[in-house]
Amino acid sequence: MWLELSSELVFDIATPTPFTLMLRPRSGELQTVVREEYRLTPNVPMTEFTDGYGNLCQRLVAIPGKFIVATSATVMAADDLDQTPGAPFIEVAKLPDALLSYLLPSRYCESDRFGQMAVEITGGEVPGYDQVGAILAWLQANIRYVPGCSEAPTSAIEVNQNQFGVCRDLAHLGIALCRSICIPARFVAGYLYRLEPMELHAWFEAYVGGRWFTFDATQTELRGGYVAIGYGRDAADVAIYNQFGPAVFPLKQETRVRLIDGMPE
Amino acid sequence: MWLELSSELVFDIATPTPFTLMLRPRSGELQTVVREEYRLTPNVPMTEFTDGYGNLCQRLVAIPGKFIVATSATVMAADDLDQTPGAPFIEVAKLPDALLSYLLPSRYCESDRFGQMAVEITGGEVPGYDQVGAILAWLQANIRYVPGCSEAPTSAIEVNQNQFGVCRDLAHLGIALCRSICIPARFVAGYLYRLEPMELHAWFEAYVGGRWFTFDATQTELRGGYVAIGYGRDAADVAIYNQFGPAVFPLKQETRVRLIDGMPE
Amino acid sequence: MWLELSSELVFDIATPTPFTLMLRPRSGELQTVVREEYRLTPNVPMTEFTDGYGNLCQRLVAIPGKFIVATSATVMAADDLDQTPGAPFIEVAKLPDALLSYLLPSRYCESDRFGQMAVEITGGEVPGYDQVGAILAWLQANIRYVPGCSEAPTSAIEVNQNQFGVCRDLAHLGIALCRSICIPARFVAGYLYRLEPMELHAWFEAYVGGRWFTFDATQTELRGGYVAIGYGRDAADVAIYNQFGPAVFPLKQETRVRLIDGMPE
Amino acid sequence: MWLELSSELVFDIATPTPFTLMLRPRSGELQTVVREEYRLTPNVPMTEFTDGYGNLCQRLVAIPGKFIVATSATVMAADDLDQTPGAPFIEVAKLPDALLSYLLPSRYCESDRFGQMAVEITGGEVPGYDQVGAILAWLQANIRYVPGCSEAPTSAIEVNQNQFGVCRDLAHLGIALCRSICIPARFVAGYLYRLEPMELHAWFEAYVGGRWFTFDATQTELRGGYVAIGYGRDAADVAIYNQFGPAVFPLKQETRVRLIDGMPE
Repeated sequence: MWLELSSELVFDIATPTPFTLMLRPRSGELQTVVREEYRLTPNVPMTEFTDGYGNLCQRLVAIPGKFIVATSATVMAADDLDQTPGAPFIEVAKLPDALLSYLLPSRYCESDRFGQMAVEITGGEVPGYDQVGAILAWLQANIRYVPGCSEAPTSAIEVNQNQFGVCRDLAHLGIALCRSICIPARFVAGYLYRLEPMELHAWFEAYVGGRWFTFDATQTELRGGYVAIGYGRDAADVAIYNQFGPAVFPLKQETRVRLIDGMPE
Repeated sequence: MWLELSSELVFDIATPTPFTLMLRPRSGELQTVVREEYRLTPNVPMTEFTDGYGNLCQRLVAIPGKFIVATSATVMAADDLDQTPGAPFIEVAKLPDALLSYLLPSRYCESDRFGQMAVEITGGEVPGYDQVGAILAWLQANIRYVPGCSEAPTSAIEVNQNQFGVCRDLAHLGIALCRSICIPARFVAGYLYRLEPMELHAWFEAYVGGRWFTFDATQTELRGGYVAIGYGRDAADVAIYNQFGPAVFPLKQETRVRLIDGMPE
Repeated sequence: MWLELSSELVFDIATPTPFTLMLRPRSGELQTVVREEYRLTPNVPMTEFTDGYGNLCQRLVAIPGKFIVATSATVMAADDLDQTPGAPFIEVAKLPDALLSYLLPSRYCESDRFGQMAVEITGGEVPGYDQVGAILAWLQANIRYVPGCSEAPTSAIEVNQNQFGVCRDLAHLGIALCRSICIPARFVAGYLYRLEPMELHAWFEAYVGGRWFTFDATQTELRGGYVAIGYGRDAADVAIYNQFGPAVFPLKQETRVRLIDGMPE
Repeated sequence: MWLELSSELVFDIATPTPFTLMLRPRSGELQTVVREEYRLTPNVPMTEFTDGYGNLCQRLVAIPGKFIVATSATVMAADDLDQTPGAPFIEVAKLPDALLSYLLPSRYCESDRFGQMAVEITGGEVPGYDQVGAILAWLQANIRYVPGCSEAPTSAIEVNQNQFGVCRDLAHLGIALCRSICIPARFVAGYLYRLEPMELHAWFEAYVGGRWFTFDATQTELRGGYVAIGYGRDAADVAIYNQFGPAVFPLKQETRVRLIDGMPE
């Protein structure tokens, strides 16, 4: 399906503030980006770099006053995402070197503390995709999805105590549970068509059967329309924006995803 | 200055042909990209990856028939480029690890064969920027710039024998001469405003005084309006397109660079 | 000074267990490795890879029974480590891209929760080295160093609550405090000559004045004799060993550091 | 088999000379390194870094006078190397991103000039392993292996003209031929047990059937006893030593490989 995406962040800046941003989708297996805009108002100098996860990141110093980051893109997104119950667990010894870091605990996914719980949740499942399926079902049954309820990210331990969370929080707990049974899992931030309410979204991927699969505990069924803008171990690695210095929250954050008829002229 | 850039490549494909492409400018010290389009006709699946030089590359398999790659971008380019006669040579022992590969010979820059010649050309200059300046002056005096004269890249040795070449060829010889006196040098492909005749361009950068400086032997004076789309050791690393299998040459290759009034609405 | 280092880990393995290990010191600014041994008993196949932090890591699958990893090395270590009170804070906008990840929160260094506390501890100090110095003094005054008191790593938040910890724990809290005031900080695991009691050690480095400096809250004064074996964001990245599957604790872990007369014959 | 390897390079240095070295074998699929020594006389400061190919490299500045680099290692090397006639060609579209650079021409492997010749040599073979086998047979029949005949590396074009070469030269031509028919190929430097005359050796690997296979045109049959110390696109990337400034040739270069009874005590 063809989607028009846009995101607008409006900040009120008090003192010159360094930012890193991650707002540019790239083409990949599941999405092709044909148009993209990236506007800063006022237009301050910006440099780009690729981080250790392959994300395209921007650096700039916002100057005092109102600061707007407005991006948009036209993307062909997958209509359907693969689901492969039965896809087997890949033994740790057979994982590519580059995936090992997705087995380790990270800031918001304290997988070193969830071993027992993950074993209980996935008990009796065929190792691999079905274990992740059991984790997903458990999240949907036990952690209430409450969009917009948190400002700062909360970690898997906190989410498990709270028993509710935003999309990001559910992803964190899902990832921690996967890793604790030796399934590589990573965090994805991006857009989802027809998300209600519309906002930037987060979900997770798990590596089973020799590839990454998409899982989203906030949705009752997995449908198409996902557009990724960043990958990482958790939300600490994949921040739509990171500002350094006194905390700056956006005055406004507006996200739109619109279905279009086909590749635009 | 604000520039509108576009590039169109038209191929006639006989059998399914894998391509890698490098046609997306990124924001950096010298340029800010605010809009970008990337269209394939027909629209085949495409994935992106970042290569070892930080370039954003695309992979696809073109299917038989006419195949068009059309890209465009709106970029704020630097009005002027720094020139710093006297900027000192950086001793090899003090270079960052990541720059050492820019001292080695590469496919089209056989720096291992130019030691004597580079010493003669740069004799008497203060080590550093002024040596590169002498190399540039020597290229302008001795190698005739003939746009459009070659299909396949030629190497520094060949260019030196031919005594003429396209932009790419002059860059290759400049790079080989710099490296042979231990100055890191790299190849850049991109756009140049008001290039005559207009086509995709190539130039080189040399690392002196602790940073990269731009050098272009095809121009009598260094002016603004450069937009880089790829960096590497030479044209083998920085190919606007690489196709694998029987050689496919574009039926048409059209490049445009237009000055605009300011950031578009 | 010339040091002979050795480390022996003895495990009792119940089922085939994948391990990653990080036990090979490399030569660097502060140390030159002239001899090294690495023995596994029984001798199972092992591969090596370099992780995202530049550490040399080993992968293997330990088979049931007693499993011994014995390493030793002869290293010339720095006699003294630089201390530069007054070395200035580097503005975030001026940090190299590759250092930005050392400003982010990580598994055991939840720097996103320490902003207020770090400001209080470092209040009045010249930004940079002296702030880190104040953090170090605060750690020494407030967190009791108790070698051998923990099995699993504890995080900065936990250490701050406990008010005591092993070397690793003090490093975690020091790092979290540095990052929360925008000073890049990283975790180091390795050896320290004359550490009492002798065991594998951990400390941290902070980036001020354009380079990394060593800080160790477990020692009353900074002396020479450090040999690093791994760097990372915290102990999750720098694990001497990581085993996957049911937890396996070493039956025995023995570490030795011996001063020798000079480069051995 | 267990091997004791040693290499000694003796230089006579006239002025302070920066070197990069690549002399440390690492453990991998085909070899396990259990002991290693690395001595410089005189003992100048040395740092290490991992290059873009994963090789462990050393940097130092040699001071005037006699300079000796002596390394040794104890390694378990594979007794036999896999040969798999019939292993299929992997379509370019299916190659991992990281392998694409092994399809490009490089300094000493001008694969862009060998398309026609490679097609002739491999005509009629099943695409994949058997094509590389035909290239190997062609090299053995047409390029005379003359150990010790060259000082500086020669490129595939030059080797093809000369019709003779050292191990490095044969590898260069083999690699250029493979790449020109879209088979990824890389250069390997290292040791070979029972090589006659004994010296540091070079061979190549080709990627077919989903993995790298070893090929060595200097040997009539492929046997075990190979120990790799560096990988890259060609000898420009994999230099046992690179010195910067006036050329310095070793006064003496001595290599030894000795079979031992088993893992030493």
